[in-house]
Amino acid sequence: MKMISTLFLFALLFSSSYALDFCVGDVKGPETPVGYLCKPTSKVTVDDFVFTGLGAAGNTSNIIKAAVSPAFSAQFPGLNGLGISIARLDIAAGGVIPFHTHPSASEVLLVTQGKILAGFVSSANTVYLKTLKKGDVMIFPKGLLHFQLNAAGYPSIAFVSFSDPSPGLQILDFALFANDLPSEFVEATTFLDDATVKKLKSVLGGTG
Amino acid sequence: MKMISTLFLFALLFSSSYALDFCVGDVKGPETPVGYLCKPTSKVTVDDFVFTGLGAAGNTSNIIKAAVSPAFSAQFPGLNGLGISIARLDIAAGGVIPFHTHPSASEVLLVTQGKILAGFVSSANTVYLKTLKKGDVMIFPKGLLHFQLNAAGYPSIAFVSFSDPSPGLQILDFALFANDLPSEFVEATTFLDDATVKKLKSVLGGTG
Amino acid sequence: MKMISTLFLFALLFSSSYALDFCVGDVKGPETPVGYLCKPTSKVTVDDFVFTGLGAAGNTSNIIKAAVSPAFSAQFPGLNGLGISIARLDIAAGGVIPFHTHPSASEVLLVTQGKILAGFVSSANTVYLKTLKKGDVMIFPKGLLHFQLNAAGYPSIAFVSFSDPSPGLQILDFALFANDLPSEFVEATTFLDDATVKKLKSVLGGTG
Amino acid sequence: MKMISTLFLFALLFSSSYALDFCVGDVKGPETPVGYLCKPTSKVTVDDFVFTGLGAAGNTSNIIKAAVSPAFSAQFPGLNGLGISIARLDIAAGGVIPFHTHPSASEVLLVTQGKILAGFVSSANTVYLKTLKKGDVMIFPKGLLHFQLNAAGYPSIAFVSFSDPSPGLQILDFALFANDLPSEFVEATTFLDDATVKKLKSVLGGTG
Amino acid sequence: MKMISTLFLFALLFSSSYALDFCVGDVKGPETPVGYLCKPTSKVTVDDFVFTGLGAAGNTSNIIKAAVSPAFSAQFPGLNGLGISIARLDIAAGGVIPFHTHPSASEVLLVTQGKILAGFVSSANTVYLKTLKKGDVMIFPKGLLHFQLNAAGYPSIAFVSFSDPSPGLQILDFALFANDLPSEFVEATTFLDDATVKKLKSVLGGTG
Amino acid sequence: MKMISTLFLFALLFSSSYALDFCVGDVKGPETPVGYLCKPTSKVTVDDFVFTGLGAAGNTSNIIKAAVSPAFSAQFPGLNGLGISIARLDIAAGGVIPFHTHPSASEVLLVTQGKILAGFVSSANTVYLKTLKKGDVMIFPKGLLHFQLNAAGYPSIAFVSFSDPSPGLQILDFALFANDLPSEFVEATTFLDDATVKKLKSVLGGTG
Repeated sequence: MKMISTLFLFALLFSSSYALDFCVGDVKGPETPVGYLCKPTSKVTVDDFVFTGLGAAGNTSNIIKAAVSPAFSAQFPGLNGLGISIARLDIAAGGVIPFHTHPSASEVLLVTQGKILAGFVSSANTVYLKTLKKGDVMIFPKGLLHFQLNAAGYPSIAFVSFSDPSPGLQILDFALFANDLPSEFVEATTFLDDATVKKLKSVLGGTG
Repeated sequence: MKMISTLFLFALLFSSSYALDFCVGDVKGPETPVGYLCKPTSKVTVDDFVFTGLGAAGNTSNIIKAAVSPAFSAQFPGLNGLGISIARLDIAAGGVIPFHTHPSASEVLLVTQGKILAGFVSSANTVYLKTLKKGDVMIFPKGLLHFQLNAAGYPSIAFVSFSDPSPGLQILDFALFANDLPSEFVEATTFLDDATVKKLKSVLGGTG
Repeated sequence: MKMISTLFLFALLFSSSYALDFCVGDVKGPETPVGYLCKPTSKVTVDDFVFTGLGAAGNTSNIIKAAVSPAFSAQFPGLNGLGISIARLDIAAGGVIPFHTHPSASEVLLVTQGKILAGFVSSANTVYLKTLKKGDVMIFPKGLLHFQLNAAGYPSIAFVSFSDPSPGLQILDFALFANDLPSEFVEATTFLDDATVKKLKSVLGGTG
Repeated sequence: MKMISTLFLFALLFSSSYALDFCVGDVKGPETPVGYLCKPTSKVTVDDFVFTGLGAAGNTSNIIKAAVSPAFSAQFPGLNGLGISIARLDIAAGGVIPFHTHPSASEVLLVTQGKILAGFVSSANTVYLKTLKKGDVMIFPKGLLHFQLNAAGYPSIAFVSFSDPSPGLQILDFALFANDLPSEFVEATTFLDDATVKKLKSVLGGTG
Repeated sequence: MKMISTLFLFALLFSSSYALDFCVGDVKGPETPVGYLCKPTSKVTVDDFVFTGLGAAGNTSNIIKAAVSPAFSAQFPGLNGLGISIARLDIAAGGVIPFHTHPSASEVLLVTQGKILAGFVSSANTVYLKTLKKGDVMIFPKGLLHFQLNAAGYPSIAFVSFSDPSPGLQILDFALFANDLPSEFVEATTFLDDATVKKLKSVLGGTG
Repeated sequence: MKMISTLFLFALLFSSSYALDFCVGDVKGPETPVGYLCKPTSKVTVDDFVFTGLGAAGNTSNIIKAAVSPAFSAQFPGLNGLGISIARLDIAAGGVIPFHTHPSASEVLLVTQGKILAGFVSSANTVYLKTLKKGDVMIFPKGLLHFQLNAAGYPSIAFVSFSDPSPGLQILDFALFANDLPSEFVEATTFLDDATVKKLKSVLGGTG
């Protein structure tokens, strides 16, 4: 009996040296340069560490015939501060994840169904291109332009992990054409002609 | 024609400002505190960024009825320096990935087949326990003890990603019983009795 | 006179480029992934940078005959954000600091009285074991299981420093037995038998 | 006399605790994930810390009427490991630094002559656009697409600093059109038409 | 039409995976160990990323005949979290930026007018000294004592960039003499004599 | 029997996912920006993790009546890459550790004998000063000028830990006077007079 009580005191002593094992994000509040403020530990439950829904296909009935279902810290606050996140890619036949970058993370892609043609371009403008089958893994280094294409003729699925809980996503066409950046500047900085720029702005909802 | 040549010069100029986009590991050479030295870029091909083999099940005909197939920087040198890695878990019916830690990485687990009961324990000794089904994701914060158990009654599969290209893996029973740490010290530092320690040392190949 | 006033203006100019030399933690408020928010500099005094009390022995009248007196950022908010912390270990004759890990820090131990037998186990399950006397220093790499035992037959003292203001502390036996993790899961993931698990749960206040 | 010799011994004692103040890069040797190996300190001179040549204009007689003169760690090894680098931009009348990213660095631009219209696009596709005059500074966050245009009608000059000794530089048009990435894949992943892609590949020296 | 709407939905999907591209500092609120909390993105405009005023000379009518005009995160909150900052140095004929350190940043100095004699001292007490002319760049490694002197006989200008948005600035003479540190302690810890210390305290507004 | 062999295979599998638990420095070879290259793990023994000698007093028969005995990565290569180091301070009656900085580390000081008057100065030139007795701990934030004085009248001892395996040490008087920096530049950048500078250069072995 005495043993238990001294042990209990011992446990209390140690728990007073409480450590920041995790920092489940309080997504309502302000952010810091390294993520959200932490939800109080007393309010954290196992469900903060579990994200459901990546078992279902994203809706690929769109122009790119593809869908990205993210579990980043904004959707899955348990990742906050832990240096990692995940997403599901669904790419229907003929579908494509267009050229894009993740400004703050490297990406590991794992094919779990179908075939995917993936590529990235280095700063030296070298192209690294591969057709990946089920079980293959490919790494896309941080910040470099890359893309994925369905290479199977039927729906392909991949899961992508990132080296940051909030990897960012800058889709090239959206950055160029889905906003109010004046066409003349787009043209001057991309060497695309006016007709091309205007057409893509129209399709993607841009103005100017 | 002139345009092309001036552009070509321009490209050369820029390529002289070569950046370290990636650092494919030279696994034969010495390591640094942050990973391997880099293979020369001139010898890097797309195959350095692709890892195959996670499509096949690991061999679960062993005492834990489970297998871990890692694609860490030692196996997949393209990950070197990029802050991420991945592995496949196969857990047969009745199988278990015993209590373990990854000293240098947080882990994101995605169930792709079956059901897995997973748990981790915090510094405050709180248990976070959940049965995960296909498509569920769970995060295990860096350095904390955690485990996974088959909860399906048939083979379950998960893919686990880590926030480090070389996350480390310290399996509790192996650390305690699969080496020459004298039994008396194991007993004194775990409160296990001599018979238990000796038995597990015998099973796991330990001495002392 | 004029010199002084212009210099004074000069000082004001520079002080407007105020830097974050330190960030004394506001322990009442929310935390970030890298520590507490900062107490306003105007309220900081020298006493925020001084911690007293490590001169007195901790109470070793407990089951492990040992005590840990932490000066981590929770107890000593001046450490917040500065990448270091310290604690005192008292280990009476026959005492032990049981197997544990610090999930986010490496540890340097300095013996200041008596003798201590210390060891850690690597991911490769190799044991690094040494009897340390007064003035000896040992390093325990981040996240690895380690322990300390009195090797003097009389009270030993050590001071341990950590590479993080909040290093964390996961004591193996407490993580396994001092909570409500069901015995069957403990057994399945440690290979310990039911009697052993139940006994230690009873001693350490665990349930299930 | 004795004072000097004891002081000298004291100096020797301290110098034995030699610190890594800097790590001038050995650019001939292998790289690590965080930069070059260090040149021996005994061979380091002040000239390793000085870079000359940014006083002269780069050659803007090219298709973009602009030049980038980098002082990154490859050109200026003294920066190695120190978290910063610099470059000079010359943009003639009508000149442009086309859309590009720096995968591993944020950029601060300072206009020292003329006027520059600069912009960047966020992950949310918002455009941040400003005409900068001499003495103005603009920040471009890490990894985001940005560009600069001459807005003066006469040569403009800017100096750009980066939060990394090797910031990387991925020029959008070069990444898309100045290599052997097959046109069909460029088209599928950018929504550009075949004629546009083929024309730009021709201009920029690409194939496929 | 349908294309646009599906694309629009696609854009919404992606924007839900909003990333922390930047973290414009909320300078009114509390700080974290790594900078200010972020201003809400909805309130951010391009002016948060632009700093004006470095085009004008600082006032050098003071004892050091020099001025530092900082654009650190306190003055330019758009830098918050981005790992870089900048300042302008004006050094009149006979002027000097006295010995100082930046506790948390390396510095790159670029001369844009005149000549500057600059130097730093390593931990090994080696002096690295150079007279820099327009267009020359010099690096000052993090935390080391350094200084700049006008070497032209007419006003010189330099721009200095730092590897931290809040590099800190500890001016040696101000640290020693412009506060209430008792003279006896200054003397004991610098080997300066009482008259010298008292004189400089008087000039710089110190007491004690 | 079969159980053991399958377990053994299992252990082999796991050990193939070998992690970089530590990186004992190879002090003969080149350095990286983050420390030494690693000694091969096969040659590492427990003695690489143990440093002896801090039990003995340093020699305080010198002008400052004090001694610093470092266990930094140069002396104790087992610390390499682990983010921490330690040293012993001996300060005889009347002794002093003169003003100095550690360019890359914060410091925690623990008094184990006697009394020490310690102080540091912030960027805002505020002095934080305290007389510490046995068992007191004080933190000195990274890169700031600080000092320690014997306040006991008999030998005092402290142990100081640093947040870096190679914290650096720049002693103010040595940086100013113990090298060949011409006196005129020392005077111009410190406001000290010629006689003072020449005298201290003479005492400390400087020239110029």
